[in-house]
Amino acid sequence: MILDKINNSKDVKLLTIDEMTALAEEMRELIIKKVNTIGGHMAPNLGIAEATIALHYVFNLPSDKIIYDVSHQCYPHKILTGRKEGFTDPDKYLKYTGYTAPEESEYDLFKIGHTSTSVSLAAGVAKARDLKGEKYNVIALIGDGSLSGGEALEGLDNAAVLNSNIIIIVNDNEMSIAENHGGLYGNLKQLRETQGQAECNMFKALGFDYMYVENGNNVQDLINAFSRIKDTNKPTVVHIHTLKGKGLAQAENDKETFHFTMPGILDTKPENIQTSTEDYTSITKDFISAKIKSDKNAIVIAAGTPGVFGFDKKYRQEMGSQYTDVGIAEEHAVAYASALAKSGAKPIFTVMSSFIQRTYDQLSQDLGLNNSPITMLVYWGGISNADATHLCTFDIPLISNIPNLVYMSPTNKEEYLAMLEYAYNQNEHPTAIRVPAAELISTGIPDTTDYSKINKYKVISKGSKIAILGLGNFFNLAVEVKDELISKYGINPTLINPIYTTGIDRELLESLKQDHELVITLEDGCLDGGFGEKISRFYGNSDIKTLNFGAEKEFSDRVPLEELYNRYHLTKELIIKDIQNTLKERICK
Amino acid sequence: MILDKINNSKDVKLLTIDEMTALAEEMRELIIKKVNTIGGHMAPNLGIAEATIALHYVFNLPSDKIIYDVSHQCYPHKILTGRKEGFTDPDKYLKYTGYTAPEESEYDLFKIGHTSTSVSLAAGVAKARDLKGEKYNVIALIGDGSLSGGEALEGLDNAAVLNSNIIIIVNDNEMSIAENHGGLYGNLKQLRETQGQAECNMFKALGFDYMYVENGNNVQDLINAFSRIKDTNKPTVVHIHTLKGKGLAQAENDKETFHFTMPGILDTKPENIQTSTEDYTSITKDFISAKIKSDKNAIVIAAGTPGVFGFDKKYRQEMGSQYTDVGIAEEHAVAYASALAKSGAKPIFTVMSSFIQRTYDQLSQDLGLNNSPITMLVYWGGISNADATHLCTFDIPLISNIPNLVYMSPTNKEEYLAMLEYAYNQNEHPTAIRVPAAELISTGIPDTTDYSKINKYKVISKGSKIAILGLGNFFNLAVEVKDELISKYGINPTLINPIYTTGIDRELLESLKQDHELVITLEDGCLDGGFGEKISRFYGNSDIKTLNFGAEKEFSDRVPLEELYNRYHLTKELIIKDIQNTLKERICK
Repeated sequence: MILDKINNSKDVKLLTIDEMTALAEEMRELIIKKVNTIGGHMAPNLGIAEATIALHYVFNLPSDKIIYDVSHQCYPHKILTGRKEGFTDPDKYLKYTGYTAPEESEYDLFKIGHTSTSVSLAAGVAKARDLKGEKYNVIALIGDGSLSGGEALEGLDNAAVLNSNIIIIVNDNEMSIAENHGGLYGNLKQLRETQGQAECNMFKALGFDYMYVENGNNVQDLINAFSRIKDTNKPTVVHIHTLKGKGLAQAENDKETFHFTMPGILDTKPENIQTSTEDYTSITKDFISAKIKSDKNAIVIAAGTPGVFGFDKKYRQEMGSQYTDVGIAEEHAVAYASALAKSGAKPIFTVMSSFIQRTYDQLSQDLGLNNSPITMLVYWGGISNADATHLCTFDIPLISNIPNLVYMSPTNKEEYLAMLEYAYNQNEHPTAIRVPAAELISTGIPDTTDYSKINKYKVISKGSKIAILGLGNFFNLAVEVKDELISKYGINPTLINPIYTTGIDRELLESLKQDHELVITLEDGCLDGGFGEKISRFYGNSDIKTLNFGAEKEFSDRVPLEELYNRYHLTKELIIKDIQNTLKERICK
Repeated sequence: MILDKINNSKDVKLLTIDEMTALAEEMRELIIKKVNTIGGHMAPNLGIAEATIALHYVFNLPSDKIIYDVSHQCYPHKILTGRKEGFTDPDKYLKYTGYTAPEESEYDLFKIGHTSTSVSLAAGVAKARDLKGEKYNVIALIGDGSLSGGEALEGLDNAAVLNSNIIIIVNDNEMSIAENHGGLYGNLKQLRETQGQAECNMFKALGFDYMYVENGNNVQDLINAFSRIKDTNKPTVVHIHTLKGKGLAQAENDKETFHFTMPGILDTKPENIQTSTEDYTSITKDFISAKIKSDKNAIVIAAGTPGVFGFDKKYRQEMGSQYTDVGIAEEHAVAYASALAKSGAKPIFTVMSSFIQRTYDQLSQDLGLNNSPITMLVYWGGISNADATHLCTFDIPLISNIPNLVYMSPTNKEEYLAMLEYAYNQNEHPTAIRVPAAELISTGIPDTTDYSKINKYKVISKGSKIAILGLGNFFNLAVEVKDELISKYGINPTLINPIYTTGIDRELLESLKQDHELVITLEDGCLDGGFGEKISRFYGNSDIKTLNFGAEKEFSDRVPLEELYNRYHLTKELIIKDIQNTLKERICK
């Protein structure tokens, strides 16, 4: 194994070209085995192996600096920088994150998981170098769909005028997560087809020196290119053409499925991965399909992550021109949706909770201020064991404090379907729905609630002393608490499904004052700026006590869910205990 | 007057070229007089008069649709669309906003005040048209610095592949608000110098048809160009070269000063506008100057609005390479600053409260997650009589709910200077300071507080029964309330300067429980998701009552400040009344 000789970046410099080529294959084997075991980003890392080796060969890391965009392409980099045990030893598969992490290695500069940031970060590193009068190369590795994000384009615009060393490596694997979208990818295609010679060249137009490498999986070609631009004193783009998924036939053939995979992908036939079980994703797709077919003005908008919503290739084709994937460009997506709604179309914007924060200003100005009646579906919102870069706990604080927006949290299938119909048909407000991140629950009884009565909470059962507001994913936890209070403590609390995180039901909350002492709120997200605090504010000047349960304001990093639930007191037992501590003598076994 | 004949867009079509040319002059006279009387955007509107006339002449408005980016260039458009009284009649100067407003006219599609949105909005309008099978032209008018914003670039990327009619008019007046920054403006320059023939053309690279108009203030040339591309079925860019400030010599010569002006600009010599009075802007500049001179690693970053910070041309030149104006590109600015800090430089990012929301994801990911110790100065934060598009009430909710960020609100000069020193020298956290939007107050006593004790509030005077937390701008209101409680009600309340909106001083708040019944909070911003709610949450399970004072969650639109203060109970009298209602029998005259 060549890999046995590699303990850090400098060892790469001692290899021959043939050894480096073999090393790329060895790394791919490790990556395939690891990702098939624990899941992760498969195809992007298979494609970038040779380029990573060439970078470590040509540049002097960590004196020279590399910033990986999104950083989900950093597996080969980790293998070469003292962390190969995380790939060779299954017991250590979870030791290192799937993203760059400065706490792991001096070769990593930033924690990066959202996309399109590398050029801006590299520009900052380069500028600091220049201020300090130091000399080293600063390299941003971007691609794999990241280029279309506004921050990347702002970064390119500014990096181009740095008047100093900054090297942007554009990893062009002909793909975003799904296929590419947008004019700039057309330009990359032109450049590929002309070996970089096309007259139209957006990088040159912005002011960069430009170089093209056709075989971005050939170590020698890459070394030649990188050697030529090493120590350049001008902003330079190296456009390398790589094969996403290289070395794994299934991944080369189905780059999208193999972009990010769950464990066992290679033990299953990809066409069998889709389960036929009904879940919130499948019923959303059914709803959308029906609208697309019955209403030519229906249009679905996604920003580069169709897999999150279960929009596979076939499904996307069925939507045809009534589907726009804008690529990774959430800002554009929201403004575009706003204008569609204002012009009489029926836009449904689908977005993952973690990425909704990429477009705050547009939610506020283009949507809220213009009160555009779009439907926005927010997926995966809630506390999770995710990497700190991909938390989904901030969507409620983000959306709930913007005027005019309506954000609803359904608690079962029938409610969700009724809300979808309402949101789609109404013409009043930007209306977001938090798609439940939970097992599907069906009551079997169609929901006939009039959701146009904004901020009208549902009283599920009327009791006294304690009222429990169980929002969305946590409604069932509220039910558990209620049942426990009845069975063990002889207290029959009021159970409320508050639905709306964007406002409060003053009339209902006021009425609770008559025969309640304590109101507790449960929300599956960050407490700071969230739903519960609004309830506490409301009751601040009254005799009602309040307890807000939810996540603390923190970047939790791959913490097991159970540990987080314990930390945040999000179990039946801990909630009851806090209730006891608040009411003291008044409730006991 | 030609203008006498113009009551709506269609009347323009009856004019000769000479009449239209004269009309442009007439409109400019009106704009100059109005802006000199009530303030507003002077130079941008002077430059766009002919193009506006030509658009109304060639296209069939309002069937064809124009979307103005930023929309501060819409004055001539308003004059031509039934709202000329807002320019001819001084009594009606305030009747119409300075931005497009659908409630005013069917010729306006969106409320737009933040920048870089027009292309995305136009893409949405065009797509809706295509879904519905309708035919009309959709035009985005962008320029004047807006192009560098990420949303504009995302929009261009996507508009280029619409495969349908969309016309982007790039108003190239060689300026942003200040001078232009970034590679794309270099490309515009190349295109100007070659009459649009330069090989490097970013618009063509993205896939647009492209046309150049050298004299963008010549009605005939503009009509010729617009006529040629009217009803095009391809995404098309028309690059027009205009003169910002045209027709007013001072504005042509000093485009930056005349971009947005206060009333009376023409009655004052521009060099005399700067007052020599000390204020928070001037002491910030003094602080920055000292750091720039003494520390080569100090660097100031702005995103296109240097005037907000008082960075005039001379001051910018003095900062030299230690100043980066990234143009309108707040996302890039924050990531760039983060990387500078991580690389050992000392970045100070200056930003207006209303625009901080253009970069939420970067505040969270690039700054917060990476815990980069930048200094961020947020200007103008607080309740104001501003247009709904430029409110500054959401910065506290926005920043305060992101982990790791520290946001401080000083209450006087000495505190502010001490916080600046702390923020600049520390190496722990992204540290934002809300530059007081108030008259400068000086205690004359240097502040020796150790601000590294994050979330440690200051007890200004210890009392009992009631505690008043007066944040930043509203600390003085808290003092007024305190004095009134003492003098009229014989209650000596505890007065607290909480400083930090990003966390709570648990120890202090806990101690208040001993001898206080009510804790009130005062903040100059939106209550929802803000500071006060955190205090109410903290006390929710205790016997302490709370009252939170601040702005409601709403897009207030040019509402007089006094009216807003009354609406939000932000006067001494109304606060005392709410205190009485809460404590009832316990406090009376």
